[in-house]
Amino acid sequence: MELLKQRILKDGVVKAGNVLKVDSFLNHQMDVALFSEIGKEFYNRFKDCNVTKILTIEASGIGIACVTAQSFNNIPVVFAKKNKTKNIAGDVYTSKVVSFTHGREYDIIVSKDYLKPEDRVLIIDDFLANGSALEGLIRLVEDSGATLIGAGIVIEKGFQPGGDLIRGKGVRVESLAIIDSMTDSSLTFKD
Amino acid sequence: MELLKQRILKDGVVKAGNVLKVDSFLNHQMDVALFSEIGKEFYNRFKDCNVTKILTIEASGIGIACVTAQSFNNIPVVFAKKNKTKNIAGDVYTSKVVSFTHGREYDIIVSKDYLKPEDRVLIIDDFLANGSALEGLIRLVEDSGATLIGAGIVIEKGFQPGGDLIRGKGVRVESLAIIDSMTDSSLTFKD
Repeated sequence: MELLKQRILKDGVVKAGNVLKVDSFLNHQMDVALFSEIGKEFYNRFKDCNVTKILTIEASGIGIACVTAQSFNNIPVVFAKKNKTKNIAGDVYTSKVVSFTHGREYDIIVSKDYLKPEDRVLIIDDFLANGSALEGLIRLVEDSGATLIGAGIVIEKGFQPGGDLIRGKGVRVESLAIIDSMTDSSLTFKD
Repeated sequence: MELLKQRILKDGVVKAGNVLKVDSFLNHQMDVALFSEIGKEFYNRFKDCNVTKILTIEASGIGIACVTAQSFNNIPVVFAKKNKTKNIAGDVYTSKVVSFTHGREYDIIVSKDYLKPEDRVLIIDDFLANGSALEGLIRLVEDSGATLIGAGIVIEKGFQPGGDLIRGKGVRVESLAIIDSMTDSSLTFKD
């Protein structure tokens, strides 16, 4: 997606430890006009799949997922939570995730009320790097008996193993920008 | 906002400990068509205030804030984060929040890059109960030197002290549904 790649080149900042900071427009401050274009692009790629629900994970996936849902005729969005709260009681699906950003392991949960066998689920997230969060989300969908349509990712770090890992399981992954390599002074995209 | 009140009456569930579960449409599963109507209503109430930025807090405020921003001509949304991550380095504004839902104290942070003295900030959040999260967000705005326009809240628990506390400081708070009382068998709204 050319608009997104140009924005990453313009406003992305590469930091030590393979961190790409895009928090001026994607995951701290958010450009909702860009999100609308991202949502339309995800719709173009998955419009023939009868998606009935979008699943994402807190926090930075939520805005992109909600705006994307508008392009899919306002289908419901569900976000997996990283902490148990008083407000989620009873039956939940749970899986484990290792965070690249935070360097720790945690559980993610979704209420069984909001993932059902009849759902056709598109997973949406902002980043794909090592793939742990996406693997965790896929397990939630599998546990629920819902149909997994695929995953729509805004930025994939193509030099980290997540993309190959998930595609190797037969899951359709559509990433709008795949980064081939990045250093302080240059950033290149796949094709 | 009548549409919202009817939805709360239809799908809200009152739980022990003054908890109102609205996670089928507001803060776990999300109805983005409802969010669009909520966004239009916030715009109607604040359209003459020259709002330039929306501030919210992870996680459940983010979807509402992003969709609301569309009604405000796609102004940027910034969300305060509850944990320090590798990706936020350097200068941040910080304030303390006591969570009603989680029963613990935590810091919230916003990068100084995304709140500036020239910003005119509308705070958006899903719930107002004891007011601690909103107080924390207000302090972040004050610390930045930005102009605080007010707060747009989806559901205010009118029988808890947050609304009075914040309005008592001279902050304009617009809540789309104010709950007067709730029990297992009945829920009433203010006017």
